[in-house]
Amino acid sequence: MILESISNPPSSCNEIRRRNDTDKNGLYELQDVEGNVFRTYCDMGTGVGGWTLVASVHENHMKGRCTEGDRWSSEQGNNANINGDGFWENRAIHGSPASATSDDYKNYAYFTMNASDVMIWQVPNDTPMSRFESSSFLKYHTTSGFLKRFGGNLASLFTNHYNMKEKQYRPNVDNGPAIPVTWNRGNNEALLAMYSSKSFSEVDAGYIQFRVINREQSAYALCPGVKMKSGKIESEHVCVGSTGFNADANYCGDFASRDYERDAEWQLDERLINSVIMIFYK
Amino acid sequence: MILESISNPPSSCNEIRRRNDTDKNGLYELQDVEGNVFRTYCDMGTGVGGWTLVASVHENHMKGRCTEGDRWSSEQGNNANINGDGFWENRAIHGSPASATSDDYKNYAYFTMNASDVMIWQVPNDTPMSRFESSSFLKYHTTSGFLKRFGGNLASLFTNHYNMKEKQYRPNVDNGPAIPVTWNRGNNEALLAMYSSKSFSEVDAGYIQFRVINREQSAYALCPGVKMKSGKIESEHVCVGSTGFNADANYCGDFASRDYERDAEWQLDERLINSVIMIFYK
Amino acid sequence: MILESISNPPSSCNEIRRRNDTDKNGLYELQDVEGNVFRTYCDMGTGVGGWTLVASVHENHMKGRCTEGDRWSSEQGNNANINGDGFWENRAIHGSPASATSDDYKNYAYFTMNASDVMIWQVPNDTPMSRFESSSFLKYHTTSGFLKRFGGNLASLFTNHYNMKEKQYRPNVDNGPAIPVTWNRGNNEALLAMYSSKSFSEVDAGYIQFRVINREQSAYALCPGVKMKSGKIESEHVCVGSTGFNADANYCGDFASRDYERDAEWQLDERLINSVIMIFYK
Repeated sequence: MILESISNPPSSCNEIRRRNDTDKNGLYELQDVEGNVFRTYCDMGTGVGGWTLVASVHENHMKGRCTEGDRWSSEQGNNANINGDGFWENRAIHGSPASATSDDYKNYAYFTMNASDVMIWQVPNDTPMSRFESSSFLKYHTTSGFLKRFGGNLASLFTNHYNMKEKQYRPNVDNGPAIPVTWNRGNNEALLAMYSSKSFSEVDAGYIQFRVINREQSAYALCPGVKMKSGKIESEHVCVGSTGFNADANYCGDFASRDYERDAEWQLDERLINSVIMIFYK
Repeated sequence: MILESISNPPSSCNEIRRRNDTDKNGLYELQDVEGNVFRTYCDMGTGVGGWTLVASVHENHMKGRCTEGDRWSSEQGNNANINGDGFWENRAIHGSPASATSDDYKNYAYFTMNASDVMIWQVPNDTPMSRFESSSFLKYHTTSGFLKRFGGNLASLFTNHYNMKEKQYRPNVDNGPAIPVTWNRGNNEALLAMYSSKSFSEVDAGYIQFRVINREQSAYALCPGVKMKSGKIESEHVCVGSTGFNADANYCGDFASRDYERDAEWQLDERLINSVIMIFYK
Repeated sequence: MILESISNPPSSCNEIRRRNDTDKNGLYELQDVEGNVFRTYCDMGTGVGGWTLVASVHENHMKGRCTEGDRWSSEQGNNANINGDGFWENRAIHGSPASATSDDYKNYAYFTMNASDVMIWQVPNDTPMSRFESSSFLKYHTTSGFLKRFGGNLASLFTNHYNMKEKQYRPNVDNGPAIPVTWNRGNNEALLAMYSSKSFSEVDAGYIQFRVINREQSAYALCPGVKMKSGKIESEHVCVGSTGFNADANYCGDFASRDYERDAEWQLDERLINSVIMIFYK
């Protein structure tokens, strides 16, 4: 592992990559535009430039529905009166990069960086940092610079452009943008092969889609690797990060109903269930 | 933002102010008397000397009653068997200064500093650090050096002088000290205008009061900007930080019943509900 | 308090002790084999070499059964469907050394260090770091280098050698290793005197035992200072860290049923209930 501590810390892994011409993945010290100093994992090996790990979504209790640890949805239970804990939008932080595969992670860069693109890695739970890269079995990133249009980071996208209020938007019709991705490990077929017979027919692979509305008008923050097909509204089995309330308590949670035990035809492959979604910016 | 990192860190913002003659608000590195190194926000602009941000009280779920995130009261539910989680008294820390408007914050200085006075800012939720000062709509501080009498910090005040045990004290009669404040932004009238018709008549503005006992003999840690009038015992709508149990579950929580939805005449202005209470020491 | 910050941080307190020949307890900066930099408390005074504080088990709500704050068991309630939150095994961290007596603590060294032995201190809740050593009323450590056989740390022991799955193992028969300890403060008799009439007869003092199975086939991570006698299976009153479910909800929790209010003959001494279990490695 590399740990670079310098007097004038860079604000992103991309800046480190350009300055130092290093291509070593590992832990680096950054200082954001607000003066916050923190260390996070940099991926220096994917294409040109460095990618900054800003968050991981970790499901600590797959059968829990908005229970303790569901920071990316709500820790307040399956509850008709709430509208999410605001972790996608707000300035709270949690966890550490070395623990990003065992716990939710969110650093300052998630809401302070002025970034252009998003990369996602799917990494098995409890993988040590030295094996983040080698263990990631799905890797893909956007290339269009779409984040610039939404304030430079996901906090801004969800706060100012794609609000996640419950029961305010129309299923499918009001879904947020689906940004095409380039694959670095895996491909559309490999991803779809991890979907079940039912969820398979709901999605198109090769995208990251944001703020997706399901049948019950709950908002899902992010569909990793896919977008919902036109008219498809069972996003609770596909996407992550929703406080969706319903009487059956199946729509709420960090991973929502990706593991839908009542009907195996909706269950995603265990590799998707038992791994974290790492979010990088560049 | 300023980030000063020096080989012999000062133990308070006031020491930095005196040493360096700086008047810039921002993030500074401190080292407390026990050797703990941490960064927090310093206000250098209010009167003579620097003020150290030691805590923020953030209500993450206004309708929750002692639910997850209610660190300043209890996260164990509306529960007759508990006596608070001890966050006002103990040595646990949480959060970070840059997240102080989106999450509870408490640093080492809260329980290790030997301070004299308390300042409170009311700052809207999710405000970035660069706008803490400009966004704060109420600012006031004590001037009497009262903390010296209670061990130099609030942890000592609550642990050694004004215990918060439930059902042990008499309503109103056993309230703790009400310390007069000097206003830096806002004034008594501006504060009272944010009170409802019913809560208005319960309080006198221009104070911070500690360990206040309500009708049901629950203890409220702090009444920001006010003291309870003689004989007034509906402090659950006024003060913050109580594990008060009752069958209706309305007294428990970080912000308790400041937002009392059943009766609008008890509801405080939304600006008070949707903002954090920042606590500084000098 | 000592705070040593050097350019090439050592990876353990033992390395500091050997390098610098210091014998001062306090806060030191370490960097683990993965590059994580962190500060923790070092005990330099117990025998030859330095001991690294890697964790503390703090019971924040003795009557709660797997409620919020029960990180070493489960925060998901008394729940037949869960198998623990994995804190003994995984790479999540929490808390800080200065707060180790007021909150759960776990640092990187807990799962990255290649250590040989374990030391346990029992320290009253809310003790400041400067008094950790003088306030600890029970101190003992292993000497056999047993950790080397189990991967060098407790995360590895529980992950790779003594799994804690519920309902998989036979009471008593499948208990993990009981490692003899040398006393540094207290002794077998002093410890047993803190046990109740019933729990007294269940244990032999002078050991740390790992992964202990009770009557209901729940796994307890660690029995501090004792091992279960042959055939004894009421470990819920003795050992800590279990997600054990039962209808009465008495087996689940960080401290499980060490404070068993229904039957005083099973209750441990208040000193054991109201103190943290600090775990050191060397």
